[in-house]
Amino acid sequence: MPPRLLLVNGPNLNQLGSREPDIYGRETLADIEKQCGAAAKKLGLALDCFQSNHEGELVDAIQKAGGNCAGIILNAGAYTHTSIAIMDALLAVSIPVIEVHMSNIFRREEFRHESYVSKAAKGVICGFGSRSYLLAIEAMADLARSK
Amino acid sequence: MPPRLLLVNGPNLNQLGSREPDIYGRETLADIEKQCGAAAKKLGLALDCFQSNHEGELVDAIQKAGGNCAGIILNAGAYTHTSIAIMDALLAVSIPVIEVHMSNIFRREEFRHESYVSKAAKGVICGFGSRSYLLAIEAMADLARSK
Amino acid sequence: MPPRLLLVNGPNLNQLGSREPDIYGRETLADIEKQCGAAAKKLGLALDCFQSNHEGELVDAIQKAGGNCAGIILNAGAYTHTSIAIMDALLAVSIPVIEVHMSNIFRREEFRHESYVSKAAKGVICGFGSRSYLLAIEAMADLARSK
Amino acid sequence: MPPRLLLVNGPNLNQLGSREPDIYGRETLADIEKQCGAAAKKLGLALDCFQSNHEGELVDAIQKAGGNCAGIILNAGAYTHTSIAIMDALLAVSIPVIEVHMSNIFRREEFRHESYVSKAAKGVICGFGSRSYLLAIEAMADLARSK
Amino acid sequence: MPPRLLLVNGPNLNQLGSREPDIYGRETLADIEKQCGAAAKKLGLALDCFQSNHEGELVDAIQKAGGNCAGIILNAGAYTHTSIAIMDALLAVSIPVIEVHMSNIFRREEFRHESYVSKAAKGVICGFGSRSYLLAIEAMADLARSK
Amino acid sequence: MPPRLLLVNGPNLNQLGSREPDIYGRETLADIEKQCGAAAKKLGLALDCFQSNHEGELVDAIQKAGGNCAGIILNAGAYTHTSIAIMDALLAVSIPVIEVHMSNIFRREEFRHESYVSKAAKGVICGFGSRSYLLAIEAMADLARSK
Amino acid sequence: MPPRLLLVNGPNLNQLGSREPDIYGRETLADIEKQCGAAAKKLGLALDCFQSNHEGELVDAIQKAGGNCAGIILNAGAYTHTSIAIMDALLAVSIPVIEVHMSNIFRREEFRHESYVSKAAKGVICGFGSRSYLLAIEAMADLARSK
Amino acid sequence: MPPRLLLVNGPNLNQLGSREPDIYGRETLADIEKQCGAAAKKLGLALDCFQSNHEGELVDAIQKAGGNCAGIILNAGAYTHTSIAIMDALLAVSIPVIEVHMSNIFRREEFRHESYVSKAAKGVICGFGSRSYLLAIEAMADLARSK
Amino acid sequence: MPPRLLLVNGPNLNQLGSREPDIYGRETLADIEKQCGAAAKKLGLALDCFQSNHEGELVDAIQKAGGNCAGIILNAGAYTHTSIAIMDALLAVSIPVIEVHMSNIFRREEFRHESYVSKAAKGVICGFGSRSYLLAIEAMADLARSK
Amino acid sequence: MPPRLLLVNGPNLNQLGSREPDIYGRETLADIEKQCGAAAKKLGLALDCFQSNHEGELVDAIQKAGGNCAGIILNAGAYTHTSIAIMDALLAVSIPVIEVHMSNIFRREEFRHESYVSKAAKGVICGFGSRSYLLAIEAMADLARSK
Amino acid sequence: MPPRLLLVNGPNLNQLGSREPDIYGRETLADIEKQCGAAAKKLGLALDCFQSNHEGELVDAIQKAGGNCAGIILNAGAYTHTSIAIMDALLAVSIPVIEVHMSNIFRREEFRHESYVSKAAKGVICGFGSRSYLLAIEAMADLARSK
Amino acid sequence: MPPRLLLVNGPNLNQLGSREPDIYGRETLADIEKQCGAAAKKLGLALDCFQSNHEGELVDAIQKAGGNCAGIILNAGAYTHTSIAIMDALLAVSIPVIEVHMSNIFRREEFRHESYVSKAAKGVICGFGSRSYLLAIEAMADLARSK
Repeated sequence: MPPRLLLVNGPNLNQLGSREPDIYGRETLADIEKQCGAAAKKLGLALDCFQSNHEGELVDAIQKAGGNCAGIILNAGAYTHTSIAIMDALLAVSIPVIEVHMSNIFRREEFRHESYVSKAAKGVICGFGSRSYLLAIEAMADLARSK
Repeated sequence: MPPRLLLVNGPNLNQLGSREPDIYGRETLADIEKQCGAAAKKLGLALDCFQSNHEGELVDAIQKAGGNCAGIILNAGAYTHTSIAIMDALLAVSIPVIEVHMSNIFRREEFRHESYVSKAAKGVICGFGSRSYLLAIEAMADLARSK
Repeated sequence: MPPRLLLVNGPNLNQLGSREPDIYGRETLADIEKQCGAAAKKLGLALDCFQSNHEGELVDAIQKAGGNCAGIILNAGAYTHTSIAIMDALLAVSIPVIEVHMSNIFRREEFRHESYVSKAAKGVICGFGSRSYLLAIEAMADLARSK
Repeated sequence: MPPRLLLVNGPNLNQLGSREPDIYGRETLADIEKQCGAAAKKLGLALDCFQSNHEGELVDAIQKAGGNCAGIILNAGAYTHTSIAIMDALLAVSIPVIEVHMSNIFRREEFRHESYVSKAAKGVICGFGSRSYLLAIEAMADLARSK
Repeated sequence: MPPRLLLVNGPNLNQLGSREPDIYGRETLADIEKQCGAAAKKLGLALDCFQSNHEGELVDAIQKAGGNCAGIILNAGAYTHTSIAIMDALLAVSIPVIEVHMSNIFRREEFRHESYVSKAAKGVICGFGSRSYLLAIEAMADLARSK
Repeated sequence: MPPRLLLVNGPNLNQLGSREPDIYGRETLADIEKQCGAAAKKLGLALDCFQSNHEGELVDAIQKAGGNCAGIILNAGAYTHTSIAIMDALLAVSIPVIEVHMSNIFRREEFRHESYVSKAAKGVICGFGSRSYLLAIEAMADLARSK
Repeated sequence: MPPRLLLVNGPNLNQLGSREPDIYGRETLADIEKQCGAAAKKLGLALDCFQSNHEGELVDAIQKAGGNCAGIILNAGAYTHTSIAIMDALLAVSIPVIEVHMSNIFRREEFRHESYVSKAAKGVICGFGSRSYLLAIEAMADLARSK
Repeated sequence: MPPRLLLVNGPNLNQLGSREPDIYGRETLADIEKQCGAAAKKLGLALDCFQSNHEGELVDAIQKAGGNCAGIILNAGAYTHTSIAIMDALLAVSIPVIEVHMSNIFRREEFRHESYVSKAAKGVICGFGSRSYLLAIEAMADLARSK
Repeated sequence: MPPRLLLVNGPNLNQLGSREPDIYGRETLADIEKQCGAAAKKLGLALDCFQSNHEGELVDAIQKAGGNCAGIILNAGAYTHTSIAIMDALLAVSIPVIEVHMSNIFRREEFRHESYVSKAAKGVICGFGSRSYLLAIEAMADLARSK
Repeated sequence: MPPRLLLVNGPNLNQLGSREPDIYGRETLADIEKQCGAAAKKLGLALDCFQSNHEGELVDAIQKAGGNCAGIILNAGAYTHTSIAIMDALLAVSIPVIEVHMSNIFRREEFRHESYVSKAAKGVICGFGSRSYLLAIEAMADLARSK
Repeated sequence: MPPRLLLVNGPNLNQLGSREPDIYGRETLADIEKQCGAAAKKLGLALDCFQSNHEGELVDAIQKAGGNCAGIILNAGAYTHTSIAIMDALLAVSIPVIEVHMSNIFRREEFRHESYVSKAAKGVICGFGSRSYLLAIEAMADLARSK
Repeated sequence: MPPRLLLVNGPNLNQLGSREPDIYGRETLADIEKQCGAAAKKLGLALDCFQSNHEGELVDAIQKAGGNCAGIILNAGAYTHTSIAIMDALLAVSIPVIEVHMSNIFRREEFRHESYVSKAAKGVICGFGSRSYLLAIEAMADLARSK
């Protein structure tokens, strides 16, 4: 059975594609998850996807992944900047975590420059739109291989 | 069919009236919602009401309102000062948002002076007790008329 | 004789309407004062109006109102953020004060987020253009009634 | 009927014992709750236990306890440092609250030194591992006696 | 002809005595000025008095005193904490300046702890109510003698 | 008729020359205004001059200039660092503004390094004594030509 | 011979009980030390007590305890927030240290929230009045047992 | 028997007069204490004097004065800016405290602008050299009279 | 001819592999550049490589690339956190820039969390060792394709 | 032989004119240097010009100018805000330095508001585009004359 | 008679050698003092040694040395970072002071980076273990010679 | 062959002696290097000397020294306070580094108090003029001996 990855998306990312397509593009989160699933499969990995607007559900999902996944790819959205609870959950699992953002958060408002997720992540990829997720899957595959 | 508004109340506002009536008055949240409904009706608006102590549920409610409401009146309670997730949800809906507080938050503790909601709101009304909500409904009606 | 309110406008608000009408609208301060006067009258209140670019004159006016008005509606303009003198004058009068701004000051430059007036006001209304004043008059009428 | 206490644990504390036993010990949260229950019983108190990773559920539980418990022992985990909502819920209940941490949070990262819970708690006990909970139960029993 | 002192009082100090007598006492500014005049006379000094709510008028008065007074006693009220203009005026006159406050400003709000006047004053006397002025007159007499 | 410039000087600049001539030179403000008038005339410009120690009068003068001048040269003295009201007045006029200081404010006290005027000015010239004004007039003439 | 503990109290704690009994209770430090001695004895421990208003004497006492005690219970009073010397002394002894405060220091002035003692302590107990000491003795007994 | 005052001087003030007479004058602390004693006597007060370089001894002296003096005049020297222990001792005595400094501390280094003593003092007198003490004695006599 | 990319490495990256191989691995910068060249070639891109310890030479190289490259991949090493000059050079070229770091800079010292390069970069990839460069090449290829 | 001035330009200023002509104009640095040379000549001064992207070369050039020039006109570009080395070089030469910027740096990003060059400059001229340099040459000529 | 130096050691330095010899070495303070005495003697200097854990005693010792020593070598331990009283004592003596630390304080906790002693010292030597003292004696001998 | 040391001097230190001899003395850098060479020779060490105004060249020199020197003595001048690149180069070499300054940097401007070099140095010696270098050579010889 192939190693499983968990792709986790945080608050408001369920809205992708359905609004302001001129800015965020027309891809929905479902489209991105599908592309990621295909990319993972090519690299010999299975991909589970989860999205929630609830901090607590994200913590639950990360805890569960700790026991049965080979890695977590996480775009925690706004919780990136405020959630020590998610950071603690990530620090407690012993599998690699990659932090992803579609936009370059360092060119946005000051309060988006600080990330609690970064303190628990192996690496960070941001600024490449939906392509950020695909690069993270490649990075995760590489980490899996090098173990 | 009249345009619909959504009145959203955040954490601990469900406790209004049932305790410390000397400070917060004897009106329950249900009382306030009822008064607001009546006021909205007079102004040709329908009013939906929602309260939750859960940040994620408030995000969910705001997202849903984006598609079927003409405006949101929001007292985010304590999340006012900590929730970038709610701010992002508000920024993503294209309908007007009015921030409301019963107390004058600027005369309270330092950490209540900063509001993420304000960064996404059309306007702010605070300090008038339950009357703050009614003023917000009038302001919303006015915004609806002037569109 | 009806209770009197004092509507006080601070620096640069005398320029309303005569410039940049695309941004601030075509209403002059005189127009707004007239609308406010009419609204006050409907609610059984008399309205005095005062504008000055001078911090000291605003302090003088507030002191005088302390003795013969039922409330003050104040848009202190730029002095909102710098004048402890105005705050002290407001704290010394025993009548209610409502702080008003046409724009949502919390979406403007950082130095406009701090308000000394807020520390002395009953409540704050901002972001609704000239409508902010009218909401303040309604709020003041309500305060008068509930006393 | 003996007075009831509520023991509330926040995010990631459900993972105790199942991981990194060299650091956190082999006791699970269930073990700790059992010990606490026994200790409470000896002191003539009944103990209810609740754990959640969801800030909103913690607020709900605190509100409910306000009406039917004699005191709350709370280890809010990461929410200790970020949740004004939990602090507000604690401030609204009229029963004593004791803040507990297994580790000495003041020897950890800077952002764990600030606690919103402390602002609403009668007292704080931290740094004694699972023993912190037992000391809190003794303290609570003492508070109950001295009332 | 005896040396002249100027006693300058800033914003809101004209309200002394007429309101909140329980806090600030029943002495009006006129009463205080009279007592100060008498005390000065005993010490062989003449006293001019000036009060204004206008920062600019205070600057004007200080400039004028530079040429024809032996010293300035200044309670700049709220301008103490915000007026570099008054500080510059004081720095430009070559006569001694004594800063006075009726209350102990260091036990009040944080923003009252910083004083621009202090940077230009010979000395500071605060916290003794109207007696602060009388102590300043004695100190000024002493300075005059020791020149 | 030649285009008119307004030369505005703020608090304490009326004292130039009459005191501490060893530091500030023996030129009075009248001398400087005369030199500036002559320089302006040579460049085909008329020069109006205004000085006040009153923040409000400076705002008044700037507002008036907005309608009938081609540019403003402003040394706001101490108000440079504290007056948002003057900045707002400058931002509201659509004519170019040049900020001038006789001293290099960046080599003086920390609180003189921040300038609200700079946020509304086309350019800044400081550190050249009375020559700063003359350079500003040349710069203004150049701006007039290039329009 | 039973293991010895040292109970150290810092500045102003010698005044307990003799003043403001309505606030701090009527127990003197001697009373508390006696109760602590009794409690320690029950748990098989001997208790030495020391109080001083002198930072240096507290350092001396801690150093001496390093060689002949099994643990230190320390209420450093005001030195808690200012003394790196005491922290260094505590870090140098290899026995466990428990920090105690009668009040909940986190609900007091901002400058009482930072503790140098915490950086050297095993754990912290605060807010339970004289009971804080007794809880610390129990905790210390437990530490002794678990070694 | 006349009411007693305690004059307390902190670290390095025992060196007055014996060095750098050009700056601090040739008066020794003994000279100043003698003058103060004489001045107190004239006003019907007895004066005890105490100086120490030891923070703990200053705390001891303040505690003792609490029981048998009518007031404390304190120049805490460098401890003014660092000693919460002295502040706590002052807050615990129920007699009035006047803070004195020979120099105007607000024109000296930044770290001398903050005073813990001020938070516990009735009033502050600084900048008048040894005359600061005499003014404090007069102020104290006045306080005694007005009680 | 294939589009050219420029791979720029800043200070101390020339030392890779030759020291502390246990930490940074045994790959030299030459090895990494070779791998990157091969990867670029596969994706239809040519790769130029440049390393310097000199901030000015990095600015020179970026300027030159502006005219003849399709994109820049930059690991500015320590200059990431201090060089506004490099940021300005990047902002002036109209080609995409990707910021790369081998380590996760957000888990290192505080002063490595701020990046001037980020303010001018399309995206950021960090934490994947030498693999960070290869991911950047893929991202750049993708950007080229999507133009 | 006429006195020589040195015109020094820092990083990225060599790019002037060749890119983004709509923003920075079509003048190249060579054009500006030529205009400046002509202007200097008219005023009886010779002008040497130097540009570098290297902080060290700028320091070298300033050191050399110290011995054989009558003044330095410096636009240090990005190094303005980060280079203490350039400031030290300027402080060590005994000739006057004028700081120049084409844009008004105080209306740009926060980190461009602080200038180390200002601490070593006679005066500052900014915001007038290439005209800033010409004003500096006039100011320098004036300084030369007044020596 | 040879010139005398005073070697002063602050809090916790009396513990050197007796504990944690693996970290701080096996040299006791007595050993170090003996070596320093021998080194001083070789250089024609006599050495007095003093250690105390009491801030006040350190102040006393410095004051006394002012009158009968040629220089002070001071390792103030933790008081380095908190004692303005010691700094004032050092500033008042007219003999040279050398600050010494065994460890490199700049590689330790943030609060050890600030030194009040440095503001009063001729020079600083830190990081060389007990050798720091010997270097200071050589430096002091050199200062003595060059006088 | 004797062990080699590298003496590195940063920006503006090449100017020593040739200017402001009253302040910095008449010794040139060459003089100091010669003295250091002689001192090193006496202690059985060879000394290489390097000076540059270029941050990059200093990094180059440090890297090169890593392979063939026994230690580095570094006065990084202004780069001390701004160069993470130099710090990183120092951290990467495995030989001891001693930081030297001629002046006591802690008595100079605030921005000279922070040193990146200190974070990579074994020890720091500052404030002894050219003698600081000689003390560093002695310290280095001692380090060499004790290895």
